[in-house]
Amino acid sequence: MQKVGILGGGQLGRMLIQAGIDFDLDISVLDPDPNAPCKLFANRFEVGKLTDFDTVYQFGQTVDVLTIEIESVNVDALEKLHQEGKKVFPQPQVIRTIQDKRLQKQFYQTHQIPSPEFVLIDNKGQLADHADFLPAFQKLGKDGYDGRGVQKLTSPNDFEHGFDKPSLLEKLVDIDKEISVIVARNESGGMRTFPVVELVFHPAHNLVDYLLAPAQITPEQAAQAEALAQEVMLKLDMVGLLAIELFLTKEGKILVNEVAPRPHNSGHHTIKANGTSQYEQLWRAILNLPLGDTSAQSLAAMVNVLGASGHTGNAHYEGVNDTLGVKGAYLHLYGKKLTKPSRKMGHVTILDQTLQGLEEKIDLIKRSIKVVSK
Amino acid sequence: MQKVGILGGGQLGRMLIQAGIDFDLDISVLDPDPNAPCKLFANRFEVGKLTDFDTVYQFGQTVDVLTIEIESVNVDALEKLHQEGKKVFPQPQVIRTIQDKRLQKQFYQTHQIPSPEFVLIDNKGQLADHADFLPAFQKLGKDGYDGRGVQKLTSPNDFEHGFDKPSLLEKLVDIDKEISVIVARNESGGMRTFPVVELVFHPAHNLVDYLLAPAQITPEQAAQAEALAQEVMLKLDMVGLLAIELFLTKEGKILVNEVAPRPHNSGHHTIKANGTSQYEQLWRAILNLPLGDTSAQSLAAMVNVLGASGHTGNAHYEGVNDTLGVKGAYLHLYGKKLTKPSRKMGHVTILDQTLQGLEEKIDLIKRSIKVVSK
Repeated sequence: MQKVGILGGGQLGRMLIQAGIDFDLDISVLDPDPNAPCKLFANRFEVGKLTDFDTVYQFGQTVDVLTIEIESVNVDALEKLHQEGKKVFPQPQVIRTIQDKRLQKQFYQTHQIPSPEFVLIDNKGQLADHADFLPAFQKLGKDGYDGRGVQKLTSPNDFEHGFDKPSLLEKLVDIDKEISVIVARNESGGMRTFPVVELVFHPAHNLVDYLLAPAQITPEQAAQAEALAQEVMLKLDMVGLLAIELFLTKEGKILVNEVAPRPHNSGHHTIKANGTSQYEQLWRAILNLPLGDTSAQSLAAMVNVLGASGHTGNAHYEGVNDTLGVKGAYLHLYGKKLTKPSRKMGHVTILDQTLQGLEEKIDLIKRSIKVVSK
Repeated sequence: MQKVGILGGGQLGRMLIQAGIDFDLDISVLDPDPNAPCKLFANRFEVGKLTDFDTVYQFGQTVDVLTIEIESVNVDALEKLHQEGKKVFPQPQVIRTIQDKRLQKQFYQTHQIPSPEFVLIDNKGQLADHADFLPAFQKLGKDGYDGRGVQKLTSPNDFEHGFDKPSLLEKLVDIDKEISVIVARNESGGMRTFPVVELVFHPAHNLVDYLLAPAQITPEQAAQAEALAQEVMLKLDMVGLLAIELFLTKEGKILVNEVAPRPHNSGHHTIKANGTSQYEQLWRAILNLPLGDTSAQSLAAMVNVLGASGHTGNAHYEGVNDTLGVKGAYLHLYGKKLTKPSRKMGHVTILDQTLQGLEEKIDLIKRSIKVVSK
């Protein structure tokens, strides 16, 4: 039985454990939150800081293979483990490149991977030199996560609220669609791509409404997006799972927005809708097993189950019955003890043969399921 | 978070845990084997005898809902828990009826459920009274399991080797096919049936070669088998999951062979091949949630991965790469530390669009995967 370790004990780690059960693994998890979603199901659950060298190094020494479900981990410790012969996938240098958005953008530039134009900013004062670059997003190099560390700068008046830290300015692009591709690669060099998915935005609120798989784009666009994703994987020379978020611009170009070297929110639906789930695929990749069939078995949507606004405290789920009463609806709860507004508490995957059928089910489910505090 | 308990910590419990992760459950498991397959993944794993009243009663008191993955449990303890208001599914009286094959057969007789003819035998001496009943199977009332406690009696000469315990003689029937149906029922009375599956026997060895889903029978035969399975479920008035093994006789009759009130070997394929797996369906049933879509998404086969003959000791898996290299092949290892000849160590589910394609893959996989000791 192989001993594997996961840095991070959130929902991604939880679904990784779920898939890992079939591979006869002894799974250890490290997370700073004593009530993290992985707590109840990991064989060994250790509470500790993911950014602390000693904690990560010592944790890594207890396992044969180490992977991540979050990028903000101590890469120095992973590099030392890697140098000492431990299998660490994704490789530490890949995590180092990706966890700093400045290095990530420079990587695209160096390797001629199409991506929105950018300039590096060392401090707030430098923003004034780039008034001609607006409108743009200012993104912190490090520690941005889930929308934090990113802000839109429209005019020079916005500079006074700019981040005063190493960051980058990224030119706004005129987006037709936001799409995403997940690629897996094993140690032997085998590579498999999941079909392109699409983030569908709510027409009124300009917020992601649901994820649609496969994306409603032309076969040429899909092929181009998949090829680009594979190119990024190969140029990173990475083993594991890589999610590539892309912009399909109104001019018809495909640009890399950003990447994540781990299971991704845009791959949750693969558990029910594809030949192999992204979680099983990650195990196959890092254990150097043949990669699984990624083909879509059905049209699918994924809706995040978020904490309701105005509710903070012990999580309680309303509308579970109505949700599961919808044919082809599958609820995945993450086992988080506490809810707070917009916290990701679970997701629902919805299968249907037609887009219209899917949309009707999505409407029904979004009106049903609610996470409140009690 | 609901606290649920599973009596039995084998592979069926392990796959139940795997499915239960999505329902935000706190899962406890009781099993006599300290290295049972559930050990690493249960939130709480307790070592204890499933047939001991106090052990089962005390374990049951720690959870809100109790279920089983094996029939040989202490039913008196479950009845006491049930009387005290604990949710126990399947209900204790159903387990009592099913765990004794004599009671099970009498139940079929009372409720006019078609089943092979039988006579009850209290001791070896009574066998001589039923020479006219041969050829027949003698089956022990209690504690028969996985082929143990069953023997074929062909002529009166065999009587001296007969079991000298409460048992039954069951008349041999001329079988065309052995088929199986799994039915789920929740507390609100919702009921769903999985498509009929077929045990395919090896033409030379007369041993089960693989399970084929759906069964290659006529739509009328399938409808009749499903209706019969639902009838048994309703007459048992059971909540949970019931596997009904059936004989399709050469005369075209469908007879109930025996039933199991729990997840079943003949439902493993549902994890990959059906809208909802038997394991998820059991949770939906006993937590009184709407039952899931059971439809077959693909033609599927299931091959058991058994311990190789001549190998007893720490399990080691050969041919995993070749197995996972087959498109549509999914390996499920049960995490058993020790292998011995013919022990169920895992299974492979194989998906394909055609029967011929499926058979080619089965051949390939059966030649690849091997469990040896090292």
